[in-house]
Amino acid sequence: MKSFVIKGDICYSENIDTLITLKDHYLVCENALCKGIYTELPLEYSSLEFFDYSGKLIIPGMTDLHTHAPQFAFRSLNMDSELLDWLNNSAFKEEAKYSDNAYALKAYEIFANALRHSVTTRACIFATIHMDATKILMDLLEKTGLLTYVGKVNMDRNSPNELCEESAEKSAEDTVRWINDTTDKLQNTYPILTPRFIPSCTDELMIKLGEIQREYNLPVQSHLSENKDEIKWVQELCPNSKNYGDAYDSFGLFGKNAKTVMAHCVYSTDEEVELMKDNGVFVAHCPASNTNLSSGIAPIKRYLEKDLKVGLGTDMAGGHSDSLFRAIADTVQMSKLCYRLVDSTTKPVTFNEAFYLATKGGGEFFGKVGSFETDYEFDAVVIDDSVLPHPQELTVYERLQRAVYLNADCKGLFAKFVKGKKII
Amino acid sequence: MKSFVIKGDICYSENIDTLITLKDHYLVCENALCKGIYTELPLEYSSLEFFDYSGKLIIPGMTDLHTHAPQFAFRSLNMDSELLDWLNNSAFKEEAKYSDNAYALKAYEIFANALRHSVTTRACIFATIHMDATKILMDLLEKTGLLTYVGKVNMDRNSPNELCEESAEKSAEDTVRWINDTTDKLQNTYPILTPRFIPSCTDELMIKLGEIQREYNLPVQSHLSENKDEIKWVQELCPNSKNYGDAYDSFGLFGKNAKTVMAHCVYSTDEEVELMKDNGVFVAHCPASNTNLSSGIAPIKRYLEKDLKVGLGTDMAGGHSDSLFRAIADTVQMSKLCYRLVDSTTKPVTFNEAFYLATKGGGEFFGKVGSFETDYEFDAVVIDDSVLPHPQELTVYERLQRAVYLNADCKGLFAKFVKGKKII
Repeated sequence: MKSFVIKGDICYSENIDTLITLKDHYLVCENALCKGIYTELPLEYSSLEFFDYSGKLIIPGMTDLHTHAPQFAFRSLNMDSELLDWLNNSAFKEEAKYSDNAYALKAYEIFANALRHSVTTRACIFATIHMDATKILMDLLEKTGLLTYVGKVNMDRNSPNELCEESAEKSAEDTVRWINDTTDKLQNTYPILTPRFIPSCTDELMIKLGEIQREYNLPVQSHLSENKDEIKWVQELCPNSKNYGDAYDSFGLFGKNAKTVMAHCVYSTDEEVELMKDNGVFVAHCPASNTNLSSGIAPIKRYLEKDLKVGLGTDMAGGHSDSLFRAIADTVQMSKLCYRLVDSTTKPVTFNEAFYLATKGGGEFFGKVGSFETDYEFDAVVIDDSVLPHPQELTVYERLQRAVYLNADCKGLFAKFVKGKKII
Repeated sequence: MKSFVIKGDICYSENIDTLITLKDHYLVCENALCKGIYTELPLEYSSLEFFDYSGKLIIPGMTDLHTHAPQFAFRSLNMDSELLDWLNNSAFKEEAKYSDNAYALKAYEIFANALRHSVTTRACIFATIHMDATKILMDLLEKTGLLTYVGKVNMDRNSPNELCEESAEKSAEDTVRWINDTTDKLQNTYPILTPRFIPSCTDELMIKLGEIQREYNLPVQSHLSENKDEIKWVQELCPNSKNYGDAYDSFGLFGKNAKTVMAHCVYSTDEEVELMKDNGVFVAHCPASNTNLSSGIAPIKRYLEKDLKVGLGTDMAGGHSDSLFRAIADTVQMSKLCYRLVDSTTKPVTFNEAFYLATKGGGEFFGKVGSFETDYEFDAVVIDDSVLPHPQELTVYERLQRAVYLNADCKGLFAKFVKGKKII
């Protein structure tokens, strides 16, 4: 029935500024939805199953808006280069291995297991061009109980031979086959259209993907304005586009027709930002990756001031951590350096704002997700923060800050719920 | 006798560019010193005690050149402000609690235990102004087996009442008493002279500390050129000094007379850098702290090119992590942003360079420490990196990168040696 009550020290964002923390409260889940928070449990709920997490932190499950499952295996390796070199010398070489289903199974089992034991409950995930390996990944993710969008990647140009689909036609055909094979087959794991990025996809392929999007009404994920060399390349490849985002838009793949998330947006111009806002495109902010690949710092505070939709992404293996706790701290830290070194007129992102981005901000891509307000889907993570000893009295808010900053590895993960189902 | 042999996958820096990695090798410790690395164990060592760490990583113990023990308890709290506000509103309030020996004991036990279970084997540590609490800390550290310098802090101006010593004279008297009480009393825990920073110490006190330094021949630790407002303040307080470093130098507390380490150096001018080089002053680079407090990014690569002595510091609680693994990754990451956003003529710090800084670079403050070369003091950390599963074959060098980037919490810490003594 997915109806029950949990009790503990509850933290969630009401809005981007307001982080609510409540000691010893009851949180009701009815038919997989949040149905109120109480100091004393109302009589009507007294017969529901009860999980007592007193003394532990209860936070909304977090959304990872951008990551690459096949890159999980080589996190932290070859970190001394920038995006385009890193793609050719590291990422593409690793992804090519996923033509081998046995390797894919072995690697994706490790990835799925790690994701299950993280604070993440929802994620948008890139697989590779390989249809079979992508299905293996989706099956494994389904078993975790997490709720994810997974994309078979499209690449038909500027890619090494072993990671280049033979034609736009073949890429589109495989994509349709994969969509038909996976749509409505799994409870919690859905296909998402995934052109890698403009440089990897011919116009012919992008036109076909636009058509597929409209026919199957799929959401879309890709990369946008991550690195200056990349942006210059896109300008050369798409001379008629006003900006990188406009290039996607010209193929109907930039939010007008479908829910769309774009990773990075480090160097989005005002014009591109306007287009994202008009089209409701989500920004997946990936601060660790933008640092590791020497890309720069995305001006997230400015995007928030412009009311863009923003969530956080781990972007493994550009980012080396699978932890959204770490992504929250990274977001705050990088915004401080942006303030100090780039634009002192825009204040740093606060802890409360970054917590919002990891929960309600990114959660919006999945609907009413990422908060404990009434009628939000019930995603929760319970943390036993007694693993972080301290000599002084602490408020719930202080304990939350410690959990996020000091516990990226999520030691003391005690329970986890996704859409009302207890998965740990 | 502190003579034995260990075997495993050995990693250490020969120099700043060259990181040696050796699979399945023997490392000999004789009378607490490294005495060679071998593919097969020479007969002369065959009777020594033998620890078999086959399949595990063996790395030099790391040196934390700058951290604050009393701030460990409030890591990650109140991170939304800059240095001077943060000192007044957070750090000083917490440090004032250490007038209470019971609180100090409780808090320092947690700190010492965490340090013991980290990759750190040596550290330069600030305590507080409180003589008794500082002695409590030193006793606790002694029990861990780590090798540390600990400083009773001096502060007699611009500090809150509860954390301000009543006069320069009293501060100096307490310092002498503390030196006499602790010198040669402990095996592994030594006093270090610790004027907090110029703004906290009157000229009268600094003169006395210079005299004490010469009489007792103690090393010195303090802060330097961390934040622009702070530097401006020092200029106002010391109008006759050419720069912040020169202010210390004018009191004989800047390396000419004694081994000296200065934390931060984010904004050191060429002139200050020259003085540091002439005087052999060590830089304690604290990238996490410089980010958290919106200070900026210290141009470490430039300092290395100028042959300054540099090591890494966690600078808790400006930094929120106690991990030198994390400090290595932070050093690389911040230098990439420095390259991208501040000075594109200076390349980022590489992984090998940052690893050197955490081991041999900072270790030099303690003598021949931080490497496995012959006659280096035997500090080693053994890590069972099977806690980081992976689907592919990996070299020892790749496993080291993963351990550093993915394992800041040092899961799988298997054994630890300090100066030839096994402490874990």
